[in-house]
Amino acid sequence: MSEGLLKNILFPSDLKKLELAELPKLSEELRQFIIDVVSSNPGHFGASLGVVELTVALHYVFNTPYDRIIWDVGHQAYGHKILTGRQEVFHTNRKYKGISGFPKITESEYDSFGVGHSSTSISAALGMAKATDFNKDDRQIVAVIGDGSMTAGLAFEGLNNAGIEKTNLLVILNDNNMAIDPNVGALKEYLLDITTSKTYNKLKNDVWHLLGHLNKLGHNYRKLAQQIDNAIKSFLLRQSNLFESLNFRYFGPVDGHDVVYLTKVLNDLKDIKGPKLLHVVTQKGKGFKQAEENQTVFHAPGRFDKETGEILKIKADKPISLKYQDIFGHTVLELAKENKKIVGITPAMPTGSSLNIMMKEMPERTFDVGIAEQHAVTFSAGLAIEGMLPFCNIYSSFMQRAYDQVIHDVAIQNLNVVFCLDRGGLVGEDGATHHGVYDLAYMRGIPNMIVSAPMNEEELRNLMYTAQLPDKGPFSIRYPRGRGVMPEWRTTLNEVEIGKGRLIRKGSDIAILSIGHIGNSVIKASKELEKKHIDVTHYDMRFVKPIDEKILHEVGKNYKSVVTIEDGTIVGGFGSAVLEFMSDNGYTVQVKRLGVPDKFIDHGTPEELYKECGFDVEGIVSSVKSMIQPNLLSNAG
Amino acid sequence: MSEGLLKNILFPSDLKKLELAELPKLSEELRQFIIDVVSSNPGHFGASLGVVELTVALHYVFNTPYDRIIWDVGHQAYGHKILTGRQEVFHTNRKYKGISGFPKITESEYDSFGVGHSSTSISAALGMAKATDFNKDDRQIVAVIGDGSMTAGLAFEGLNNAGIEKTNLLVILNDNNMAIDPNVGALKEYLLDITTSKTYNKLKNDVWHLLGHLNKLGHNYRKLAQQIDNAIKSFLLRQSNLFESLNFRYFGPVDGHDVVYLTKVLNDLKDIKGPKLLHVVTQKGKGFKQAEENQTVFHAPGRFDKETGEILKIKADKPISLKYQDIFGHTVLELAKENKKIVGITPAMPTGSSLNIMMKEMPERTFDVGIAEQHAVTFSAGLAIEGMLPFCNIYSSFMQRAYDQVIHDVAIQNLNVVFCLDRGGLVGEDGATHHGVYDLAYMRGIPNMIVSAPMNEEELRNLMYTAQLPDKGPFSIRYPRGRGVMPEWRTTLNEVEIGKGRLIRKGSDIAILSIGHIGNSVIKASKELEKKHIDVTHYDMRFVKPIDEKILHEVGKNYKSVVTIEDGTIVGGFGSAVLEFMSDNGYTVQVKRLGVPDKFIDHGTPEELYKECGFDVEGIVSSVKSMIQPNLLSNAG
Repeated sequence: MSEGLLKNILFPSDLKKLELAELPKLSEELRQFIIDVVSSNPGHFGASLGVVELTVALHYVFNTPYDRIIWDVGHQAYGHKILTGRQEVFHTNRKYKGISGFPKITESEYDSFGVGHSSTSISAALGMAKATDFNKDDRQIVAVIGDGSMTAGLAFEGLNNAGIEKTNLLVILNDNNMAIDPNVGALKEYLLDITTSKTYNKLKNDVWHLLGHLNKLGHNYRKLAQQIDNAIKSFLLRQSNLFESLNFRYFGPVDGHDVVYLTKVLNDLKDIKGPKLLHVVTQKGKGFKQAEENQTVFHAPGRFDKETGEILKIKADKPISLKYQDIFGHTVLELAKENKKIVGITPAMPTGSSLNIMMKEMPERTFDVGIAEQHAVTFSAGLAIEGMLPFCNIYSSFMQRAYDQVIHDVAIQNLNVVFCLDRGGLVGEDGATHHGVYDLAYMRGIPNMIVSAPMNEEELRNLMYTAQLPDKGPFSIRYPRGRGVMPEWRTTLNEVEIGKGRLIRKGSDIAILSIGHIGNSVIKASKELEKKHIDVTHYDMRFVKPIDEKILHEVGKNYKSVVTIEDGTIVGGFGSAVLEFMSDNGYTVQVKRLGVPDKFIDHGTPEELYKECGFDVEGIVSSVKSMIQPNLLSNAG
Repeated sequence: MSEGLLKNILFPSDLKKLELAELPKLSEELRQFIIDVVSSNPGHFGASLGVVELTVALHYVFNTPYDRIIWDVGHQAYGHKILTGRQEVFHTNRKYKGISGFPKITESEYDSFGVGHSSTSISAALGMAKATDFNKDDRQIVAVIGDGSMTAGLAFEGLNNAGIEKTNLLVILNDNNMAIDPNVGALKEYLLDITTSKTYNKLKNDVWHLLGHLNKLGHNYRKLAQQIDNAIKSFLLRQSNLFESLNFRYFGPVDGHDVVYLTKVLNDLKDIKGPKLLHVVTQKGKGFKQAEENQTVFHAPGRFDKETGEILKIKADKPISLKYQDIFGHTVLELAKENKKIVGITPAMPTGSSLNIMMKEMPERTFDVGIAEQHAVTFSAGLAIEGMLPFCNIYSSFMQRAYDQVIHDVAIQNLNVVFCLDRGGLVGEDGATHHGVYDLAYMRGIPNMIVSAPMNEEELRNLMYTAQLPDKGPFSIRYPRGRGVMPEWRTTLNEVEIGKGRLIRKGSDIAILSIGHIGNSVIKASKELEKKHIDVTHYDMRFVKPIDEKILHEVGKNYKSVVTIEDGTIVGGFGSAVLEFMSDNGYTVQVKRLGVPDKFIDHGTPEELYKECGFDVEGIVSSVKSMIQPNLLSNAG
């Protein structure tokens, strides 16, 4: 598939045989290989292009896998995968049973720490470095972290702790001024200031202006002026730097696309003890014009034409529904126009959450706080306590980062904060780290919290409308990655009664209780079952908490068999809420809980994963049949 | 109760009537009042003494409650409570139905944001400041945060975001070089460097040495030398500071015990726009000699003699059991002596967790990482992935901060990390923010995680022993605040079969399944019930996951009625695990789940709170009776 140098580089040991002067050519080939494969098999794109040279340099200089490279987040690690034994299978990237889109320890010994969520690399690297000390090994530990990831609290905690350990540790700050969307925050401005040397130049100018007078006095005083300048310069390098404040030796900034120079710098750093930070400046999407120019779109562009850069749209026979995230984006703007108290908050996901729709029209009422989920929630609590109404949009699996803040800052104080949990349920190709399968379970345990999930676009809009009505308290609305089911989403906004489900279909043989979008699969399954003369009652429960007790009494009284279904863990989730109700009220119905079983689910298309978990349409049909069959038999018998 | 000036200061409006010159006297009276009350009614101590002057100055200068003061953590806010309408009820501090030990919005309009966990204040204050902008108010927002709290990621996230907002916000860094234990980390060293001015003095000396030559040249060059010095000084203040790096204007350090000077500084800062940080240096325990000298002990000393500082021990008739935390401390050291891979990790709680027992003997194998729960877990993951065996000890309610790291960094990778969750269950006087009531529910939803809780000291030791045997994967052990039940805790260490409960008592009328220490209440209740001729079977389940299926089959087959009991939420907790099993296996037993109901529980003694939740001994007895009675009746009928 590959040509030139790359085709013979199966492992880093092959790479090390190259001459230093060949590395630029190899880098170009690696870049082209990534473009070739990712254009036809979608995945993350811009981040890996940006670190091609850094990846080549790291594997050229360090003795992997003995030395450890920890890629923060990991969506920039495609080059790493290709150079470490996975060139031939790279076309299976993110496919079901194929290789993972992120470093994964079970996949390769070169993947030294599994990642997916941001900002873990420094803490993990420090642990690995300490273990290296304990084991009296001399391995090198390198964490590669983007400037976007550096804003998260976890990264700071790692730096703060590493700064007092004497352990050898190299943190490479991959500074491209981008997370998925452009990076924000004071740290970003600070890094920009370093890389453009504004502050240093300002001081130098001030002092030189003064020192200029000395030069007039002849050689001795010119020398003195130089000494003063050096003192200031060395002080600046040593002490005025934020990372130096935290006891890291700071090096850089260096050009992250000069692979030969990078190998030199990395080699030098190997011999410097203690915690050190190398500031590398790269360009996200480097080498692919359209990706350089539109970094947010080319973060994970889907399929595209590798010559023209044109994004290839999915062709559909019928009008295609919007993504749920866009329903959120349009609706929050619509609501904000009427309700002046509404503000929108996202931790670094304005595009991914579609909050950018509101951001565009109301920049002053939307906040991208950077990768900082904890802060996003507590900041929302602060806004709410003064009477604002925050819609805080966080992906389900990232909300795990803010669990304490949800409990401690919002729920205990019973504040009016609306949590919109996007990417709820199995997300597909991003795999285990990104599946949003715990939220219904962990949210429902929190007192005061309303836990809801819409089955379609209209319900999402109505739940959002309801959540912003006065004094609802903490209100969570979770919806999946991907598209809804309604060709026309611009429905009238109506209040939903809190804790009220709705009847979708009335039958007599069995009751199916669904929560959220997966209810649409139940509709299909019900039709299949009808063909087999099984007559299903289907309730879309809408709320996990408070749960609709009227429906549950109805079901408890009238049905022997109940199936619950949720796109989430069945350990303590929605199905368990139904069990708790039945138990508390003395009903002895047979309940089968469909959902994500108690194991981590890898990547694949959502449909493949639903099937694996047994709650695709076919799985629902066969579960219902297996519950009904004994009844039929006993009726027959 | 109070005398002098203080007795007339019921609200800040009274305080404002005092002359500036009277504030030192008032401060002394306030300090003495706190000593008087806290010596006899235990609570947090050292922190409030340290901020007496700051508290007086804040309420003298700012227009509370219109202006907002957010106390980070809040255990330093006793002075604040006393000056804001709660002097007369301060003796009810932390008592059942009395005032809370932390600021609480439902208690007073002067408590502008509820706290308890650390490091929330900057984020909350920023939200409140933005809301103030939206509402076109001109209120001042002040966050008071300790240097220990400043190390947590959330605080950094707040700083990073505040630095790009133009909003007015004053962060007061209360720097006493202490969290509960002495503060650790690079930031602490940095602050120490500022306050002792080492770096600045070093630079100044270097430059002055060089500039010295200039002075010889007469007046003009002395002036030049001074200008250069000023340029450097202003640069240092403006740019070399970590907080300035994050766009905060930095002021200080100032003496936090000079109340008159503090009022002047605070007044000046009112007129300075944008985000600003005032660095105040205080002494924890200030004004009470023993507390100044032993700050860790006097963080929350219990009852003490206010004259001598002697800590008053509880007198007991019989030999008193150790605290569970001490069993942990002694046992982890004992295990670490045999197993060279064991390391201990605590986020700022070496004393509270008793990891200091191991720390003393094996300083190189224990890590206090500062208030940084997320880092503590990911750091543990890094250690584990390289073959070490971390015992990561985090209070149950603080583990909420690291929920994502437990899932993402440990469980997905199935690493051998032992989580010891201290303060599991209702903790008593610290109240809603500190109750560790969600852990069994949130841990059990995580694949690969073993979830266990010992009923006594021997079980804790055996579970710890078992957890460090090879390849157990993620293993959580939760135990309560307070003392165990065994006079002699030095039991032989034995392996526990994973997922195996034990029979405590065999009966015939009803089965009680308990998890953890609360099982001891079941023993007492069983004896009470025996007197009433109700014959109880009692299983100590030990594991929530994997749950003992053999026992549950036994129970499902042989009992009509089952009571589950846990010192934790009944929403998705241990009892729900039992329901899930019964449902999955087709048993139709009647199950009553005892535990913490779906609401936030305030403070009080643990016994008072168990009673409120209905699972004290009496509550267990009456629950069992209410389940048995109908049976007895129907047997009779």
